[in-house]
Amino acid sequence: MSNPVLVNTLRGDVVENRHRGAIAVCDPSGRALHTWGDVDALVYPRSAIKTLQALPLIESGAAAHFALGDAELALACSSHNAETPHTETVRHWLETIGLDEDALECGAHPPLHEKTAQKMLLDKTEPGRIHNNCSGKHTGMLTTCRFLGEETHGYIEREHPAQQRWFDALGDMAGVDMRKLPWSRDGCGIPVIAMPLASIASAFARLTAPNDLPQARADAAERLTRAIAAQPFMVAGSGRLCTEIMQMTGRRVLVKTGADGVYTAALEDLQLGIALKIDDGTREAAEISLLAVLNQLGVLNDDELEALAERRRMPIRNTRGVLTGYRQPAEIWLDSTSG
Amino acid sequence: MSNPVLVNTLRGDVVENRHRGAIAVCDPSGRALHTWGDVDALVYPRSAIKTLQALPLIESGAAAHFALGDAELALACSSHNAETPHTETVRHWLETIGLDEDALECGAHPPLHEKTAQKMLLDKTEPGRIHNNCSGKHTGMLTTCRFLGEETHGYIEREHPAQQRWFDALGDMAGVDMRKLPWSRDGCGIPVIAMPLASIASAFARLTAPNDLPQARADAAERLTRAIAAQPFMVAGSGRLCTEIMQMTGRRVLVKTGADGVYTAALEDLQLGIALKIDDGTREAAEISLLAVLNQLGVLNDDELEALAERRRMPIRNTRGVLTGYRQPAEIWLDSTSG
Repeated sequence: MSNPVLVNTLRGDVVENRHRGAIAVCDPSGRALHTWGDVDALVYPRSAIKTLQALPLIESGAAAHFALGDAELALACSSHNAETPHTETVRHWLETIGLDEDALECGAHPPLHEKTAQKMLLDKTEPGRIHNNCSGKHTGMLTTCRFLGEETHGYIEREHPAQQRWFDALGDMAGVDMRKLPWSRDGCGIPVIAMPLASIASAFARLTAPNDLPQARADAAERLTRAIAAQPFMVAGSGRLCTEIMQMTGRRVLVKTGADGVYTAALEDLQLGIALKIDDGTREAAEISLLAVLNQLGVLNDDELEALAERRRMPIRNTRGVLTGYRQPAEIWLDSTSG
Repeated sequence: MSNPVLVNTLRGDVVENRHRGAIAVCDPSGRALHTWGDVDALVYPRSAIKTLQALPLIESGAAAHFALGDAELALACSSHNAETPHTETVRHWLETIGLDEDALECGAHPPLHEKTAQKMLLDKTEPGRIHNNCSGKHTGMLTTCRFLGEETHGYIEREHPAQQRWFDALGDMAGVDMRKLPWSRDGCGIPVIAMPLASIASAFARLTAPNDLPQARADAAERLTRAIAAQPFMVAGSGRLCTEIMQMTGRRVLVKTGADGVYTAALEDLQLGIALKIDDGTREAAEISLLAVLNQLGVLNDDELEALAERRRMPIRNTRGVLTGYRQPAEIWLDSTSG
């Protein structure tokens, strides 16, 4: 069966594009409280699980040893824009652990932030590995390797302890055996593992229930949550939805985007986790779906909903600046199913 | 019911993204010979109908009066890259009809051709209306207005004769009453009309059967077809699929892309028309679907199929240059339905 249409693009009164997908809203026990579409299907969470991938950085003692601050920890959980505060903080952090940009094994790509990318082009500066949106995550992995005295070369390989550590942490939080699931390579070179969507939502729900976690895990979750809420700019950057939401909500609504139409959220007040995937991989449809489900769960107040109005129903203008339509939640949001 | 999945994106062995859509393959009588999905649904054809929108430019006598060549006529049917040959030809053409860039009522946008856009940024040159991928279509409409002595200001408005003319031509070719169908604004400002997908395919099929058309229409179709086949670069540009296909096939396989996942084709040998729309609007999925249906209909020879191999099954590489998967035709192509 096909997943439901979650988002429509209207041109005039006619639906021009349709975006299907699945959403799981789970509690810390792993129970799916609300579902749209097939939440048992395997999806690649991509960058939406970076906070969970960063747990070993805290639990190993590496973050404390190198006295990492909120900015560095938020960057470890980021898909950053490569604006100057992002790249300069990563550069300094690499120095702190006795490495430099050459140690990063992610590839180079132009900054996600268009103005920064344009400025580099005008300055004839080539993008480096540090501009990769994942350079903070990679630096976090390198930090743990350095603290534990491991060989850093090849830290992106599946068998390297840097990868095995987050398989354990995420598998534990999600209630799955990561080593039995299909895997491939992510955009930045580390392994990416296809997981049931509901298990990803469950992992984020468990982040919100520290009392049910072993003390070291609860402390690590608390430390990362505090860092992200304190430094939401470092998690994404200018013009980015993750940053915009958490600048308003702080740790109350922690959200994280992933490539190809993924979003996750951890809702502190309700102790719920959300994971969603748009079938066709469209980012804007994932953003609108995230805001629709947050709205449906009642976790955004009126001021927040108002501030996010053009994110929730995106006006589309043509090259003349004329409004031609909207990207907006589909009819399904009027009567959601409960799982 | 939902349309079938036409294209999958694989990462490793797992399907990461799915693209649904509909395809109609029709003969000149309007009969649908092959269909995938709902071909009666209304879709905006966007730029995929530019050849049909250019019929009045020939039929009015305007093209002959201004002695337009193949390059100008191909540009009238183009979504061009705004590379120098495109913009310089449009600029000279505007002079020929006693106008300049200011007469264009499309909006400005950076060239579709990335290197040209980057060069303009480095040269600190602002994109103008002439760089709009539709500037050739607009100049064609202005040409007819000038020949007929019409007011050119406001030529993009629905009631202006410049628009009414192509409503008549396309409505006649497609067998629909264009004025009874829903409409909105296209990206460039002119009206865009939502049409049944099969009717769009029928219109292109009729282009391939000049003997069934009134003489003036048959002559216009022949003139535009010859121009496009002679100047495929002018229809799109460097790196573009439309140009690449027609540089190989000439008038045998005329193809045209439209925004938000549309493609059309006119197959001279088989006297068939094709129209397809990807539900979610993804361009690459439309390209792969077009090539899959062309392949299925047997209109590409072995050399052409080989030359287009990486267009038909697109390798995806990550930021390290490592192959992570493919965008490729879905399983449905193994057993297509016939309508």
